[in-house]
Amino acid sequence: MSDERRGLLAEKTPFPDDLDDRLHAQLTFLVEIDQLKTILRQSPLAATDRRENDAEHSWHLAMMVVILAEHSDEPIDVGHTIQLVLLHDLVEIYAGDTPLYDSAAGSDQHDREVAAADKLFSLLPADQARRVRLLWDEFEERRTPEAKFAKAMDRLQPLLLNWMARGGTWRTPGVTADDVRARKAVIGEASASLWRAGRRLIDEGETRGWSRRATPQG
Amino acid sequence: MSDERRGLLAEKTPFPDDLDDRLHAQLTFLVEIDQLKTILRQSPLAATDRRENDAEHSWHLAMMVVILAEHSDEPIDVGHTIQLVLLHDLVEIYAGDTPLYDSAAGSDQHDREVAAADKLFSLLPADQARRVRLLWDEFEERRTPEAKFAKAMDRLQPLLLNWMARGGTWRTPGVTADDVRARKAVIGEASASLWRAGRRLIDEGETRGWSRRATPQG
Repeated sequence: MSDERRGLLAEKTPFPDDLDDRLHAQLTFLVEIDQLKTILRQSPLAATDRRENDAEHSWHLAMMVVILAEHSDEPIDVGHTIQLVLLHDLVEIYAGDTPLYDSAAGSDQHDREVAAADKLFSLLPADQARRVRLLWDEFEERRTPEAKFAKAMDRLQPLLLNWMARGGTWRTPGVTADDVRARKAVIGEASASLWRAGRRLIDEGETRGWSRRATPQG
Repeated sequence: MSDERRGLLAEKTPFPDDLDDRLHAQLTFLVEIDQLKTILRQSPLAATDRRENDAEHSWHLAMMVVILAEHSDEPIDVGHTIQLVLLHDLVEIYAGDTPLYDSAAGSDQHDREVAAADKLFSLLPADQARRVRLLWDEFEERRTPEAKFAKAMDRLQPLLLNWMARGGTWRTPGVTADDVRARKAVIGEASASLWRAGRRLIDEGETRGWSRRATPQG
């Protein structure tokens, strides 16, 4: 067993040796990513009283792409955009979740996530590792219409959950409604109509006292 | 409020009235399906000691389509196949999960799920309700190459989790290795190579005593 394979989830119950090599690598990766179901986010679920995990979040984003794609200001390839959201958080299996309003953890987030991507995607056959890495890089760089829309979903979904929870992570100590608006503004890079709706929810939440008003100036 | 809207999750924290009607319907649906995260399946997770929920399962299937599509015996549209698996279990929000090896619950499963589809998809704007219903029907009918492959993922994923758990639901009282092979054979309608691997895992599991041998005949 090579060093890289030690500690992999699939090694708990190794596959039979006579499985085709390429499929063996693919199944090893698919078992490893089961861990995404254990990475907890800050967001409270709407349906029950617990926090959301990354796999649930990624599924919800994918469904949002299916339903909300028509709101993209630029034409997007729906299937491609779904792939971006499905795998955008995989690196958190090794790098952990970085809360949106935690600027200290955010400072080395990119380096930790790149190292995680190198480690995780290398479980795949080389051609697929390259393809999945390109998709992850595309999401992170936020330049294509698909990546902009995927990122917008990633910001809009917890906003919906916070709305449902009448505050949720908007109540994080030290965070103001202006901070929320600033972090969520990327929605507007993908969709004017969704950002109009998102801002409406943030504004209304502020009015109702679900987020803190900024300290008055002067 | 109309009768249909009573009891909807979104009614717990109603959206502002001035939200665009179409978007209001879409967001109401997207909040309602948060409940998929609370529908527990029988399958044990590989990564931690609890059962899987439907949202996690649906995400995992979607990732399996991304990684395993090349094994389809017929060419498939990956983006379309992913959409089939993302929404195939949504009806369980109202109809509940029906365990694969529970033939009593299986008898009225289709009727319960059709009623659930009628109720859930009608939350969407009419054109989208029709489109989502067509996707769900396509999955259920298992005629297109995409639907066959989607169904194969739905059978292969819990097989992987059972392998990792050294038995899992294969140990359901009264279930034999032959029952498992019979229920999983639809994988072979989509992919000869994946069914060869799946059968290898089932056979090996039987050899190791993780499933029950059929009662010897005669």
